[in-house]
Amino acid sequence: MTASAIAAAVAARKLTAVEATDAALARIAARDGVLNAFTDVTADRARAKARAVDAAIAAGQSVGPLAGVPFAVKNLFDVEGLPTRAGSKINRDRPPAARDATLIARMETAGAVLVGALNMGEYAYDFTGENVHDGPSRNPHDPTRMSGGSSGGSGSAVGGGLVPLALGSDTNGSIRVPSSFCGIFGLKPTYGRLSRARSFPFVASLDHLGPFARSVEDLALAYDAMQGPDPDDGACTTRAPEPVSGLLSQGLDGLRIAVAGGHFQKHLFPEAAEAVTRVATALRATEVVEVPEAARARAAAYVISTTEGASLHLDRLRTRPNDFDPAVRDRLIAGAMIPAPMVDRAQKFRRWYRAQVLELFKSVDVLIAPATPCVAPKLGQATFVLDGVELPVRANIGIHTQPISFIGLPVVAVPIPLAPMPIGVQIIAAPWCEHVALRVAHALQQLGVAAAPAPRGVLENGSRSA
Amino acid sequence: MTASAIAAAVAARKLTAVEATDAALARIAARDGVLNAFTDVTADRARAKARAVDAAIAAGQSVGPLAGVPFAVKNLFDVEGLPTRAGSKINRDRPPAARDATLIARMETAGAVLVGALNMGEYAYDFTGENVHDGPSRNPHDPTRMSGGSSGGSGSAVGGGLVPLALGSDTNGSIRVPSSFCGIFGLKPTYGRLSRARSFPFVASLDHLGPFARSVEDLALAYDAMQGPDPDDGACTTRAPEPVSGLLSQGLDGLRIAVAGGHFQKHLFPEAAEAVTRVATALRATEVVEVPEAARARAAAYVISTTEGASLHLDRLRTRPNDFDPAVRDRLIAGAMIPAPMVDRAQKFRRWYRAQVLELFKSVDVLIAPATPCVAPKLGQATFVLDGVELPVRANIGIHTQPISFIGLPVVAVPIPLAPMPIGVQIIAAPWCEHVALRVAHALQQLGVAAAPAPRGVLENGSRSA
Repeated sequence: MTASAIAAAVAARKLTAVEATDAALARIAARDGVLNAFTDVTADRARAKARAVDAAIAAGQSVGPLAGVPFAVKNLFDVEGLPTRAGSKINRDRPPAARDATLIARMETAGAVLVGALNMGEYAYDFTGENVHDGPSRNPHDPTRMSGGSSGGSGSAVGGGLVPLALGSDTNGSIRVPSSFCGIFGLKPTYGRLSRARSFPFVASLDHLGPFARSVEDLALAYDAMQGPDPDDGACTTRAPEPVSGLLSQGLDGLRIAVAGGHFQKHLFPEAAEAVTRVATALRATEVVEVPEAARARAAAYVISTTEGASLHLDRLRTRPNDFDPAVRDRLIAGAMIPAPMVDRAQKFRRWYRAQVLELFKSVDVLIAPATPCVAPKLGQATFVLDGVELPVRANIGIHTQPISFIGLPVVAVPIPLAPMPIGVQIIAAPWCEHVALRVAHALQQLGVAAAPAPRGVLENGSRSA
Repeated sequence: MTASAIAAAVAARKLTAVEATDAALARIAARDGVLNAFTDVTADRARAKARAVDAAIAAGQSVGPLAGVPFAVKNLFDVEGLPTRAGSKINRDRPPAARDATLIARMETAGAVLVGALNMGEYAYDFTGENVHDGPSRNPHDPTRMSGGSSGGSGSAVGGGLVPLALGSDTNGSIRVPSSFCGIFGLKPTYGRLSRARSFPFVASLDHLGPFARSVEDLALAYDAMQGPDPDDGACTTRAPEPVSGLLSQGLDGLRIAVAGGHFQKHLFPEAAEAVTRVATALRATEVVEVPEAARARAAAYVISTTEGASLHLDRLRTRPNDFDPAVRDRLIAGAMIPAPMVDRAQKFRRWYRAQVLELFKSVDVLIAPATPCVAPKLGQATFVLDGVELPVRANIGIHTQPISFIGLPVVAVPIPLAPMPIGVQIIAAPWCEHVALRVAHALQQLGVAAAPAPRGVLENGSRSA
């Protein structure tokens, strides 16, 4: 059941929130042995919240648009009573969080029910969904494959049908990559749009939080529930909520849609090219627009990420180097030694690039680009061949996402249900135009081009499929 | 004659602008052989402008508050027709500037007459006023001593009486240090207050432009002439001009004035301590307020300056290393290798420190601090002893200015006419409160505590005094 269906049924008293919650907990119990999406299941808290929702309904009180909808969050969100591990071993020594992250509180205000915290790449510095401490979260369409990172557990949990909604974070692609690999919808909003209060950061100037879902309606419902300024997050703008759920069915009228050219038409496996073609054809997007210096934007995003990340973790690198995932540690140590003028120049380039891309959005409303260069690789796969060159998988999964998040553009990743593995396409809009990207995603869903495929990698009894 | 006296005489037709200009040009011809303050004298342009002022007066047109007042600018301001050398050899190969800097245009709109460009430390990375390409600008009270840097020519020209007004720049102290060493008034406004359009930068996040004068009235006149937003400078706020000239005589009523303690009461030669004591006594400032972590603020200012400076000059360092002043080159190369996380942490500290100091300004209006730890050292002097420790002179002249400009506070440096050499004191106010610092400076001038001493180091015939 989708989130909207659950909420409608609960509000109509055809289903109780407790039943919806218990069903989610049962699915987690049945399938998470394979998927390894969850690191914490908050069953007691969830049942208490569900009972409260049911009590409110019984008392005739109004309940929110997500009444009784189970959801889970990447374990870098503060959950009251849990240490915010952010995928690490080190953070487990922290005291339990005293208070939920703002976005959790807003989801629960809308009636949603938190059922747990989700596996992720260590400190969000990851594109694979692998985790040396917790084991990998697995792809619901083939558990021998990556879920994508760093919000791998979020992709796995929603793609695997454990919960209809999850929250994750995206610094360089960490919402869009798991969406692509796991065959679900993901929204990376405009930088500064959703509060990051009480979440564990990676790169403050690039971090975004956002939702995952199996339908565009559900994505919009979650986004609407979370919108609005937050005094606890100085970077979260004062922009009042601009609800999008009512706008989805406006269709494509008046929208100028183009395919991103150059960098975004290279570095693709055939599946990625096929997915973009399907989307472009369905949207009748014939124009190709070159995003200037996108490869350089990716390089600059790397430089900023690794140095800001290194700064954030410097004390931990000094005092507890052996408690890091060795691969993450080595990337951070490398970042700690990058000379400052390179970062200064990356920031200067960023301002230039942002101005160029904003100029570009004067003549188009939406850009179409691949979300990942390939479908989910095998777990542990170290290299792949792009354009005839053998490259490390981990570093290059984000080749098409990094140039977009670098300047904070809103993106909906839409799943194209290719067989045997799905793959995502980015629907990119101008800043603060989430509603435009969501309208296009909705149109693609209506046309049957975008859809979250049923998980074929796990059976109800928890074993892997053949 | 002061700028106000010249402007009054010119407006009253007791003096022509041409006479005032010719007198300045004659003083430059007579004394600059010793002082070496000027790198360019724009005599033709000056006389043409002066004739235009006189013609306007003859035609009964209104002229500005600086009618006929000669002034000069540090040679990092664009002057139409001159390459903007910024104290360097390399920049002399640049094409001549097509247009004056905004602040020059505003001074001339107010009737002032540009007579030339002034010597400075290479690329403004200097506290001494020495320049390996142009020779040192010299102290007007003792030409064997430093003028201070990096706006050394500005200090020398105004301190030596060549012009009543000059403009300079201050990144870590480059207005306040020459003011202190040359015995004149200098204003470093709030960061973002005066346009930097068409000036050559050093550290964009720390650079300020501002005026030098021999009286507080003149300083305020020049500041008022230059205020106001500038579309050509994105960092220049939209704050409308808030003229201060009419406010100077408001006195000290209602102002809470304290002495900056801790860091600012250490690292002082007896002259600097004596100057602060004179000011504090005159202002009846008995309270001592500790500026938290001022030493760390200075360290952070260094880290940010040297790395941003290195980024700015990286291509020149790569292609023309031998055309730099070797000492500047080596500082920049060192800056080019500082790891980025150190800068990230310096910026984080900066936000914390700014918040602390703003909090402090809730209980005081003005802080008193030394401008320099000593009177002007001898040219070429490499070390001095502070608190019993032998330290390099060059790096430590700004020990008391750096923690203040680091967060963009407005400061008036006031000259205390000690014998044989003057020394300056910083009058520091909260952001956007230049008028408060100027009122206090004016009160000190009225009390006879602050005054620009007559230059005793140069005689009218251009020879040095005995």
